[in-house]
Amino acid sequence: MKKYIGIDLGGTNVRAAVVDELGNVLCEVKQETEMEKGREFVVSKMIDMIKSLDDYQSCLGIGIAVPGPVKTDENVMTMATNVPGFEFYEFYKIIEKEIGLPVFLDNDVNSAALAEAVHGAGKNDNIIYYVTVSTGIGGAAVINKKVLSGRFGYAGEIGNIIIDRNRKKYNHLNIGAVENEASGLAMIRRGRELFNTSFTSAKQLFDLVKANDPQAIKLVDDIAYDLAVMLSSVAHVVDPHVFVFGGGVMQSKDLFLPLVKKYFDELVHDAMRDIRFELAQLNEPGIVGAAMLAKESIK
Amino acid sequence: MKKYIGIDLGGTNVRAAVVDELGNVLCEVKQETEMEKGREFVVSKMIDMIKSLDDYQSCLGIGIAVPGPVKTDENVMTMATNVPGFEFYEFYKIIEKEIGLPVFLDNDVNSAALAEAVHGAGKNDNIIYYVTVSTGIGGAAVINKKVLSGRFGYAGEIGNIIIDRNRKKYNHLNIGAVENEASGLAMIRRGRELFNTSFTSAKQLFDLVKANDPQAIKLVDDIAYDLAVMLSSVAHVVDPHVFVFGGGVMQSKDLFLPLVKKYFDELVHDAMRDIRFELAQLNEPGIVGAAMLAKESIK
Repeated sequence: MKKYIGIDLGGTNVRAAVVDELGNVLCEVKQETEMEKGREFVVSKMIDMIKSLDDYQSCLGIGIAVPGPVKTDENVMTMATNVPGFEFYEFYKIIEKEIGLPVFLDNDVNSAALAEAVHGAGKNDNIIYYVTVSTGIGGAAVINKKVLSGRFGYAGEIGNIIIDRNRKKYNHLNIGAVENEASGLAMIRRGRELFNTSFTSAKQLFDLVKANDPQAIKLVDDIAYDLAVMLSSVAHVVDPHVFVFGGGVMQSKDLFLPLVKKYFDELVHDAMRDIRFELAQLNEPGIVGAAMLAKESIK
Repeated sequence: MKKYIGIDLGGTNVRAAVVDELGNVLCEVKQETEMEKGREFVVSKMIDMIKSLDDYQSCLGIGIAVPGPVKTDENVMTMATNVPGFEFYEFYKIIEKEIGLPVFLDNDVNSAALAEAVHGAGKNDNIIYYVTVSTGIGGAAVINKKVLSGRFGYAGEIGNIIIDRNRKKYNHLNIGAVENEASGLAMIRRGRELFNTSFTSAKQLFDLVKANDPQAIKLVDDIAYDLAVMLSSVAHVVDPHVFVFGGGVMQSKDLFLPLVKKYFDELVHDAMRDIRFELAQLNEPGIVGAAMLAKESIK
C-alpha cells in the first residue's frame, strides 16, 4: 500500500507520521517546536523526526501542514505569526534535499479540510466546505479532492467575513468580522460582557445554557445567528454538498449546531437547505491531512 | 481549427453561433424565444437554428447558456424563472439525438465568466471571480478554467449575500442582500427614495454625480461600500487573482469602480489588496462562453 509522510508544524508542537493511502497513521512522533531556537533549528528537527520514522524511505512524498496562509504554487508561507521567520522561507528545498522526497506545503486548516474530504465526513462528496470554530474561525473549500488555496493562500480566511457592520472594532479584523463575534474567544468575551464574570472558556457559557439560564440561551442564539450569516455567504459562493465542522467549540455541538442550521436555512435559497451540516470525523486531521497533501499532489 | 456551437438561451431571445477555439464568432443567428409557445417549441427552434449554421456538423460539441442555476452533473436547470418549464427538463438529450453532438449546459453568468477566464480579462489567471452588476448581481468562480457551479448550481448566487443586516425587506432575497442594495435596480430605487423623483435608470444617478450633486455623490459612495463588503466576503472565500466586472452598471465604471476598490482594500488583509479589478473584455460573452463550456468539457 502506498504511504506518505505527514508533518503538522505548530507553534507549540511538531508531529510527524507515516500515513497510508487509506488515512491510517502507521507510526507517529511528536516534539516541542522550540521556535525560539530559530527556523533552521526547527527545520533540522523536522528532518530528524522524519528519519526516526520506520520505513520513511518507502514513502512517496511529504506533506507539511503549517499555521498560516501558503502560496501553494511556490510552496512558501505568506504570513507566519506563530512560526516567526517562516514567511517566504523555502525550507521545503532543504527537506527535499535531505530526505529525497517531494515536499508539499499547505496551511493546517486546508490540510484538515483535505483529510475530511478524502477520508472523513466528506469522502463521498465532490464539494466540501470545512469550517473550524475554535479560538478563531477558518475554513477551506475542497473541490474534487483539491483544496482551493487561492492566489496567495487567503482562500478560506473566512474569519474576516463581515456578519454585521454595526459592531465594535476589536483588532486588525473587520468591524463585525465573524471571528470577533462567533469564535471560541468571542464567546468568552461576549459571555464576560453579559455576565460581568471571569469566563475563561466557551464551555462555561454552554454550561449556563444547559442550566437553562435565559441570558445565556439568548447569547448562544445570537452567536448561532452570526455564524449562520457567515455560512450563508460562503454557501452563496461555493454551494457545497456539505459543511464539515471542526474545532473545539463543536464539543458543544448539540447545543449549537442545530441552531446554526435553523438560521442558515432562513438565509439561503430553498434548494440550498439540504446542504448537509456534519461534524469532522478524523481524530488527527493535521498529520493525516498533511499526508493527503502529498497523496493528492502526486497521484 | 477546432469549432464549437454556442447557444445563449434567454427569456427574450435565443442566439446560436459557431465559435472557434480562440473565441472568434464565425457565424451567428438570433431569434425571439417565444417561450409562450411552450418548451418543446423552443427546443425545436434551437435545433433549427443550429442546423442553419454553416458547417455545424464539423463542430465538436454544443454549449448552452441558460438563465438560471444548473445542476451540471445532470445537465438540467434547477430553477427557471425566465424560461418556465425548463426546470429539470432534459432537453439536452433531444438536441444530442437530433444533432449528434454532446451538449453541455450552464447558467449564463457562469458561461460569461468562463469566456472571460479563457479569452478575456482573466485569460492569464488561474483563479478568476466574475461579477455582473446589472439589473441584478451574480457571480462565478473559474478555477483553472473550470467553472465552480456548486452542488445544485447555486455557487455564485452572490446577490443574496448580506452586506448589512439593518436594512429593509424588499423581496424573496435576504434583508440587506447586496442585490437589493447595489444592483442597477437598487440604484434606481435608492435614487428615487433620496431624490423623490422618477429615476428610471442607474445612469441618471451617475449623471447627477457628474454634475457634482453632493447627495448623489454620497449615495454612490454608500453603494460602492455596499458592493465592496460583498466582494470582501467573496475574496475571503476564493482569494482570486482578479475580479472581472461585467453588466450594464459598469458603463459608469470610472465613477464607481475606483470607489469600490478603495473600500475593498480597507476590508481585506493587506496582502489581498493587489487582487486586480478589471472590466470584462468580451462583447458577446453569452455565446462565446456557451461555446467554451463545450470546449473545456471536451478537451
